Amino acid sequence: MDVRALVFDVFGTVVDWRSGVAREARRLLGDRFDGNAFADAWRKRYAPSMDRVRSGELPWAPLDALHRTSLDELLAELGAGDVDGATRAELVLAWHRLDPWPDAVPGLIRLRRRHVLAPLSNGNVALIVDMAKRASLPWDVVLGAELVEHYKPDAEVYDSAPRLLALQPGEVLMVAAHVSDLAAARARGLRTAYVHRPAEFGGRVDPPATDPEADLSVSSLTELADRLGC
Amino acid sequence: MDVRALVFDVFGTVVDWRSGVAREARRLLGDRFDGNAFADAWRKRYAPSMDRVRSGELPWAPLDALHRTSLDELLAELGAGDVDGATRAELVLAWHRLDPWPDAVPGLIRLRRRHVLAPLSNGNVALIVDMAKRASLPWDVVLGAELVEHYKPDAEVYDSAPRLLALQPGEVLMVAAHVSDLAAARARGLRTAYVHRPAEFGGRVDPPATDPEADLSVSSLTELADRLGC
Repeated sequence: MDVRALVFDVFGTVVDWRSGVAREARRLLGDRFDGNAFADAWRKRYAPSMDRVRSGELPWAPLDALHRTSLDELLAELGAGDVDGATRAELVLAWHRLDPWPDAVPGLIRLRRRHVLAPLSNGNVALIVDMAKRASLPWDVVLGAELVEHYKPDAEVYDSAPRLLALQPGEVLMVAAHVSDLAAARARGLRTAYVHRPAEFGGRVDPPATDPEADLSVSSLTELADRLGC
Repeated sequence: MDVRALVFDVFGTVVDWRSGVAREARRLLGDRFDGNAFADAWRKRYAPSMDRVRSGELPWAPLDALHRTSLDELLAELGAGDVDGATRAELVLAWHRLDPWPDAVPGLIRLRRRHVLAPLSNGNVALIVDMAKRASLPWDVVLGAELVEHYKPDAEVYDSAPRLLALQPGEVLMVAAHVSDLAAARARGLRTAYVHRPAEFGGRVDPPATDPEADLSVSSLTELADRLGC
């Protein structure tokens, strides 16, 4: 496979959103809620919130803004309308402070030697930059939804990667832990690599061990580096 | 000055375009032309080529495409219409292979510890990424003209930096060796730092030692790190 650039889904593929959001919820809300359950409930609103933008029901808004709206809805539903605005703003930043899976940084460092590495996430640029600085994720460039004001799986996001990198779609490998993301990337001509992340949803969801439609299936980014000869 | 992010002009401010283009011209065209004169003549077409896009005379095109058009014009003018297409394509990549000024990488490494660093260049994303990988420029994120399909000094480019970094304009410091770039940034609310680069045009242009309108004037990026306490 002659790929020049690797573009990554981030939430779940590179970083463990559930533990990080749970940690921040516990820090900011105390033991009022179960941290993991809070993270799961918040994340459940993620795809529907983007779908409201994708359908045109809402104008473009960066993910931080969608996270804030869905947090406000969730707190209301949980009878926690008393949580103040400063705490809510700080909770939204939980998504900027997620830890990478243990294999992520070592794998990315190896992959970066011979490839351009970029996130291709629905996270807004500031979120991805904050996360990368905190977690030492060695991106060469930040790509993703906000640059084209479309959320994955809209075609515009996948198309933006080869366009901005001045590559052919087949020279770009999309790396993700979600088969739907990879299917949408493949439909735009990108190569695809599936990463098995069974812990993403704390065991409540059992993702397939491999994606037969992908060019590669691996269980870590260090295995991906092995497979690509890095 | 409470700045959170530093955004940089690149050609002339961070890298020495003249020596790099001259080197590649000598490598690819032999001693047919004087390398420095070739670089100067090509660069002379830079601002006018962007002005054709800025005025709406031409649709958006990334800098690589403008460089190719101006190269074709220059070669025709020099009676070198015989230079083949592969050589022309390789010459365009000269702008991806520019060396940083000696203080640039040490200065950026220090500045990066406490700030988000981004190029805010008219160079297209692929150009800036290739340059950064070759020269080890430690950008956190690549911003610039191509993301908004406007060339500096259009306001859209300066406005994109605080917007995408989720900062106030006054939290962003524009760093450049050209007073016109800084004046345009200041008009959009950014803070400004002038870098004196007397060698940029090989001594043919004598830039001012300081910019009295800027928040800071320095003679290197290491001096900028000193001044910002990094």
